[in-house]
Amino acid sequence: MPSENKTVLHLPARDIPVPEFLSDIARAYLTPQGGSATYPALEDKAGWRAYVAAADQAVIPLLRQMGIATTAQVDERDADGARVFDITPAGLGEGSRAVVLDIHGGGLLMCGGELCRIMGAASAARLQRRVWSVDYRMPPDHPYPAALDDCMSAYRALLRERPPEQILVSGGSAGGNLAAALMLRARDEGLPLPAGLILGTPEIDLTESGDSFHTNKGVDPGLRSLMPVNLLYANGHDLRHPYLSPLFGDFSQGFPPTILTTGTRDLYLSNTVRMHRALRAAGVPAALHVTEAGPHTGFPGAPEGLEIDREIRLFVETVLARG
Amino acid sequence: MPSENKTVLHLPARDIPVPEFLSDIARAYLTPQGGSATYPALEDKAGWRAYVAAADQAVIPLLRQMGIATTAQVDERDADGARVFDITPAGLGEGSRAVVLDIHGGGLLMCGGELCRIMGAASAARLQRRVWSVDYRMPPDHPYPAALDDCMSAYRALLRERPPEQILVSGGSAGGNLAAALMLRARDEGLPLPAGLILGTPEIDLTESGDSFHTNKGVDPGLRSLMPVNLLYANGHDLRHPYLSPLFGDFSQGFPPTILTTGTRDLYLSNTVRMHRALRAAGVPAALHVTEAGPHTGFPGAPEGLEIDREIRLFVETVLARG
Repeated sequence: MPSENKTVLHLPARDIPVPEFLSDIARAYLTPQGGSATYPALEDKAGWRAYVAAADQAVIPLLRQMGIATTAQVDERDADGARVFDITPAGLGEGSRAVVLDIHGGGLLMCGGELCRIMGAASAARLQRRVWSVDYRMPPDHPYPAALDDCMSAYRALLRERPPEQILVSGGSAGGNLAAALMLRARDEGLPLPAGLILGTPEIDLTESGDSFHTNKGVDPGLRSLMPVNLLYANGHDLRHPYLSPLFGDFSQGFPPTILTTGTRDLYLSNTVRMHRALRAAGVPAALHVTEAGPHTGFPGAPEGLEIDREIRLFVETVLARG
Repeated sequence: MPSENKTVLHLPARDIPVPEFLSDIARAYLTPQGGSATYPALEDKAGWRAYVAAADQAVIPLLRQMGIATTAQVDERDADGARVFDITPAGLGEGSRAVVLDIHGGGLLMCGGELCRIMGAASAARLQRRVWSVDYRMPPDHPYPAALDDCMSAYRALLRERPPEQILVSGGSAGGNLAAALMLRARDEGLPLPAGLILGTPEIDLTESGDSFHTNKGVDPGLRSLMPVNLLYANGHDLRHPYLSPLFGDFSQGFPPTILTTGTRDLYLSNTVRMHRALRAAGVPAALHVTEAGPHTGFPGAPEGLEIDREIRLFVETVLARG
């Protein structure tokens, strides 16, 4: 008995309290944030450059809130033309051969350069693994496929230094888009796939079709629709192409074991859940972890976030042990 | 930097469309339902009896919508004083020794008797397993601990017929409450635990403290707060006791491998997610599956629901193979 296609739910205004049982650190992440800057017009490159500069500046307090440590050895290297930060966290044992190719978030527009270095160091510390963090090129000057090209270059370079069973690929948010797209393209180009894939609240659908783009709008305190950015990134390419929106890819022809993380307040809850289901439907080993009341940022540094970090480290150990 | 404890999110009124990519059958489950009957006063037993009778009548169309088949062999039996429907689905192979102790939903108040039989047959058909469905006693005449006592009786009786490694326990919604409480109490009383536990959107927190009781209020088209029913059920017992709200139990002293299912629109999304996290934190093997846009009912009979059924059957096979 199909309902009308256009069944719409009319929700009244309402107040949503922050759960009392969350840690203080977690609660701080749920504080509603102020109004966001207006997006420039699509063709206004100077406007976008200014937007990115301001947005990058605004990220710095968030990284500070996350308590990100940077006690790591960082080498900058050229990976077939892509800039990579090669990061070894403090205290890493000599016996650890695995390398995680880490692809930073930031809406496919932000968090390059120094921010990439800081976020890569944070990933290395969280994972307790050596990380290659790709400082991929971005719009407005380098739209699709520049970022994915750079990730491919870095992955090819890493494959010359490590067998695939000692490699993992990881990406959060926009980095999850590129990480998943990298898997599809690597497979299409005949490259071996890594031991595992880590997708943190991945932006795997640039069409933003998931239900939580509506249900969690305003419930997630810091993330809104990125459609203007998505169009800037796509630069005329079809947003539904699997290299732009990996959710619409075919995962039955090879895809690595994957761990996916999100939160119940995450604007990308549907992205994450749909990707999990698509992978499972294709027979890919995939595990889902959802943080209670977690927004898109998650709860880095809070007990609730440390629990998820532990799950990811356990996943990494498990897939490396299979190699 | 902790925020104020009372940070409240003020959400404006808004419209939420049903995702276009859902199947027609799934969309039908998201049709907003009409107003619900007012709860009787706590001490008004006659009022509650009438409420239950009317609510049970109202469930029948839903079961019809779910397309529940009843081609099964059903024997009614006495299990140490508890009434159990012993259900063998059509086409079950001779070699299958496993039995699933199935605990029906219905808010710890409804869906006894004939509805229990129908829902048990549906479980047997979905799982393709023999099922013992417990027709446990309920309020207003039999508050806590009658229902849990009956589940214990049925479990003890089943343990005399099957070794624990050939038993699973399953419960959806209120049945998930009793199924999880049964595990805690069985452990406390020194009984062996079953091979696995299936929790479908479990009502494991009668205090209703989870975030989705707010965020998904009205987003889930058919479920509202059951607090008056919870108080009726508890009959003066502490709602936070682990036998009433198993979420607050200690899972580190033994708990079976568990599969948990919910949907992004489910009022019990937080219940399910929190139980998953609590089990993982205690080292219990536990897997979570979340249906995109899924309400508390899930999408039975829809392609999206059949996918979850397949995950559950796979889980059952896996834990039985370990035995």
